Amino acid sequence: MTDRARPPGTRPSTRRGARTGRRAGDSGTREAILQAARAQFAEHGYDGATIRAIAAAAAVDPALVHHFYGSKESLFAAAMQLPVIPGEVISAVMAGHEHTDGFGAHIVRSVLAVWESAEVRGAFQAMLRSALTSDKAAATLREFISAAILRPVASVAGGTDPERTPFRASLVASQMVGLAVGRYILRFGPVAEASPEELAAAIGPTIDRYLTGDIGGLPNA
Amino acid sequence: MTDRARPPGTRPSTRRGARTGRRAGDSGTREAILQAARAQFAEHGYDGATIRAIAAAAAVDPALVHHFYGSKESLFAAAMQLPVIPGEVISAVMAGHEHTDGFGAHIVRSVLAVWESAEVRGAFQAMLRSALTSDKAAATLREFISAAILRPVASVAGGTDPERTPFRASLVASQMVGLAVGRYILRFGPVAEASPEELAAAIGPTIDRYLTGDIGGLPNA
Repeated sequence: MTDRARPPGTRPSTRRGARTGRRAGDSGTREAILQAARAQFAEHGYDGATIRAIAAAAAVDPALVHHFYGSKESLFAAAMQLPVIPGEVISAVMAGHEHTDGFGAHIVRSVLAVWESAEVRGAFQAMLRSALTSDKAAATLREFISAAILRPVASVAGGTDPERTPFRASLVASQMVGLAVGRYILRFGPVAEASPEELAAAIGPTIDRYLTGDIGGLPNA
Repeated sequence: MTDRARPPGTRPSTRRGARTGRRAGDSGTREAILQAARAQFAEHGYDGATIRAIAAAAAVDPALVHHFYGSKESLFAAAMQLPVIPGEVISAVMAGHEHTDGFGAHIVRSVLAVWESAEVRGAFQAMLRSALTSDKAAATLREFISAAILRPVASVAGGTDPERTPFRASLVASQMVGLAVGRYILRFGPVAEASPEELAAAIGPTIDRYLTGDIGGLPNA
């Protein structure tokens, strides 16, 4: 397990098999980590699973898990075979953009660009299917969405009511999830056929309002 | 099969077993019709299945199917064990309301009231699950949504662009489906815990805009 000493940026293939004591090369180790991760996420949920416990279950050093997969979020994405890391997509979408009125449209356009990949759609369908068949899978997915999607979205939400930013983020997610389900799974009506630009123009202002506009503050909100 | 002669409004129970030639009473006949309906919807989809073919498969007169179930929509709802008939819920929600700014909030509030029933949620989950596991089931559900949900919603959509009312209806559906998935299936964040009033206040204006407001008309729309 000497891979944990590999400097960042070194490609594993250049050192494959160069040392002893490693099990069946990087790919075997990686697969063992992913299997352990899937088991730990399934048993303890996203929040409850730890890199340390996953490493122990895979009989590797935690540093190696970090080395191969970086964050828990990336490890989850790899274990669930997500073709993208949602938090990284969101960060990229948010980067360098201000809260102008076109921000919501920019979000819709950018997320649609990711979703148009059949791989991403397949992963979304598989996750939704598992959430529909297992309460435990739903809980894990919920925790992942909260940590990896709602938190970064909330970081760009605003308004005069900072205590409501989590609500704002979940409103954004509700519209984007509905767009995904309507366009790619149920494929109902024109939402399935509209161009990304049409959808960005129609739905963008919704995202803008959810993020920073008037969402009807209630006395007890 | 003399039931087809029964005048509308006559309760079946008052005549149960009063005539001969009927198979195992109303409940047996009804079950045969529902089984035939499920098979026909599965094979031909919602649009392709006909009351006539369902009646033939159940070896009853089409008028009896109409008598028991009314419309194809009601028959589909019964065959799929939907606890409500979506079109009837939508008609009730729309009835007697004008396109004021509170209309969207009224829709959100009314639909949430229906969804809060565990039975309705169970049916929604079952339909979504089947749509996720079978392309054919997804197609049937899509056609049903189009006929039974999008069409009545489109009938109250407005704006200066009547050719875009189907798009408006599908935008409404995308937000409401996302609310359902977020609140009841993935149960992410505050959307799952917010009160119906909070959700109506936040999401209502979205529905208003989708129905009658500016949705960013494009030259080629």
